[in-house]
Amino acid sequence: MDHEQSPPGNGTAVRIALDAMGGDHGSDQLVAGAVQAACEFGHHVVLLGDQQVLQRAVDQQAKHLSQITIVHTTQVVGMDESPMDGIRKKKDSSIRVAFQLLHQKEVDAVVSAGNSGATLAAAVKEVGRLHGISRPGIAGIFPTLKKPLAVMDVGANVDCRPQHLYQFAVMATAFSKALFGNEQPKVGLLSIGEEGGKGNALVKSTHELLSKSSLNYIGNVEGREIFHGDVDVLVCDGFVGNVCLKLSEGLAEAMVAMLREEFSKSIRSKIGYLLTRKAYANIKKRTDYAEYGGGPLLGLNGTGIICHGRSNATAIKNAIRVAAELVQNKMNDRILEMLATPEAMATVEEGV
Amino acid sequence: MDHEQSPPGNGTAVRIALDAMGGDHGSDQLVAGAVQAACEFGHHVVLLGDQQVLQRAVDQQAKHLSQITIVHTTQVVGMDESPMDGIRKKKDSSIRVAFQLLHQKEVDAVVSAGNSGATLAAAVKEVGRLHGISRPGIAGIFPTLKKPLAVMDVGANVDCRPQHLYQFAVMATAFSKALFGNEQPKVGLLSIGEEGGKGNALVKSTHELLSKSSLNYIGNVEGREIFHGDVDVLVCDGFVGNVCLKLSEGLAEAMVAMLREEFSKSIRSKIGYLLTRKAYANIKKRTDYAEYGGGPLLGLNGTGIICHGRSNATAIKNAIRVAAELVQNKMNDRILEMLATPEAMATVEEGV
Repeated sequence: MDHEQSPPGNGTAVRIALDAMGGDHGSDQLVAGAVQAACEFGHHVVLLGDQQVLQRAVDQQAKHLSQITIVHTTQVVGMDESPMDGIRKKKDSSIRVAFQLLHQKEVDAVVSAGNSGATLAAAVKEVGRLHGISRPGIAGIFPTLKKPLAVMDVGANVDCRPQHLYQFAVMATAFSKALFGNEQPKVGLLSIGEEGGKGNALVKSTHELLSKSSLNYIGNVEGREIFHGDVDVLVCDGFVGNVCLKLSEGLAEAMVAMLREEFSKSIRSKIGYLLTRKAYANIKKRTDYAEYGGGPLLGLNGTGIICHGRSNATAIKNAIRVAAELVQNKMNDRILEMLATPEAMATVEEGV
Repeated sequence: MDHEQSPPGNGTAVRIALDAMGGDHGSDQLVAGAVQAACEFGHHVVLLGDQQVLQRAVDQQAKHLSQITIVHTTQVVGMDESPMDGIRKKKDSSIRVAFQLLHQKEVDAVVSAGNSGATLAAAVKEVGRLHGISRPGIAGIFPTLKKPLAVMDVGANVDCRPQHLYQFAVMATAFSKALFGNEQPKVGLLSIGEEGGKGNALVKSTHELLSKSSLNYIGNVEGREIFHGDVDVLVCDGFVGNVCLKLSEGLAEAMVAMLREEFSKSIRSKIGYLLTRKAYANIKKRTDYAEYGGGPLLGLNGTGIICHGRSNATAIKNAIRVAAELVQNKMNDRILEMLATPEAMATVEEGV
């Protein structure tokens, strides 16, 4: 978690479309994040959503900021709506139009804190997959004791084949290079034993595939070691990855709740808590999901970031920063280069 | 985690075989746990292992305790040895002889802190499965904000079919009734969304099966909610369960390591830590794996507990207590009763 923020690739401004109707906190927080990103990094942000609502928020926060523009859309795919249905029926939804702008090269990347299934569905529909990628997915950025870890997939693909996990490893490796500047990201495979022979059928076959690959594959990683920070990339199917992501959040919250309960039991421990408050604030900062803003959508013919529904302005600002860095550091070109080897070509499925 | 310890069923002494050669801490800790269980609960403990080593430990700790006996064995299946090979080749290993005693009804249950794969393999070989159970498994007892949660399976069965998860739900329900006295344990299915339609193929089919069952099934539970303590039983395949178990341990350890690092940064926070030490001690107690000693092996024609390799004397003592309670409260009879319904019979596989 002591990651130094890498400098933006070439310093040029990037154009980002922000679905400004998603998320749990309403448009004001989203607009605030866009304004911060525009001011701090100079990026252009196109806000998608209801013109009147967004104009009011912009007027309140940064009336004269020329890097913020609004594109009016009339529909929203709700947080609990069926992604496929929502995307198919709502042609003028903020999230679909955002990816249309990406397809038309009006913007360089899309950021959304809305319905994540709908974001993925809209992305695949409007910009499509990168050539050679069977299944785009979502990488989750986990804080660890040493450095951020990219876990892929964290929810897009619940039933996977070994070649999908191989492709996740390729994509997350390119991501780790582009965002964190890792030259040779270390890749681990999430399993239930350190030896290659351990795991379920999917993991055993994936281990074979990764062992023969030119990736910097170091073998199986157990759940216990995830937070040691010894690998840069961890590969798993989207069911397991999503359970890990949510379980980590839930356990951290439960531990905080327990501490709060115990601290309140005596004056002595209340005073002790006051004296250690800075330590807690530091840990909160070290483990803050808002540091990277969200999970990158990898494997698209374009760049997208899916943010947590509860994202605040800081998270949105950071997601815009990360999206811009992935564009500037040409992540997708790196993925395509890595896929242009015979070993990678062999994992490409026909007819998908 | 505010669970009140349930009183032993009928107060009669139970005979437990303890594999006294397993675990990371050597025989002394294991013998110490046996001695504590004998003194505190009056149970008889049969120690399996090298006569000379064990006799020395017993002489040091409780020379005149008549409830401790030793059965000499000449072989040990090592912690890193292949379970199947080890069990097949080492006919006089402490773990195999322990389950032979169970088969011959010389003891009522087996406790082991040794190689968990070998423990399961020895159990299935010597006492076999309960009638109607396709796959015995291991339940993990997770601390939560409210009460202990039985998660099954946590590592024995990595590739499962829906009927296996159904049977895990039946077995863990009987376990929850027998150990915690829950009348109608609430059963959840670990998934990545709350709605029944969400999850991977295995989870979706299992949801169908559990929804139609007479179990107290409340639906999908997300990783985030595991520690809320709203369910008594959580069902998943052994790969996912093992990842969750290890990840929880690893994350808790990482959080403690981070706190330690932050506290050491200033005199102020060092003093604060001293004042809050009791709060930390309470949390450690509330979340201590040693409270129940280990994970019960469910689905066997007998009772067995697999302890953590790093078990200390307290963990072993508690595992012996738990094993005895499962015997006294007739857990296996409860499982057999629950399996004697048409719905359960339909999940029984032929030829396994």
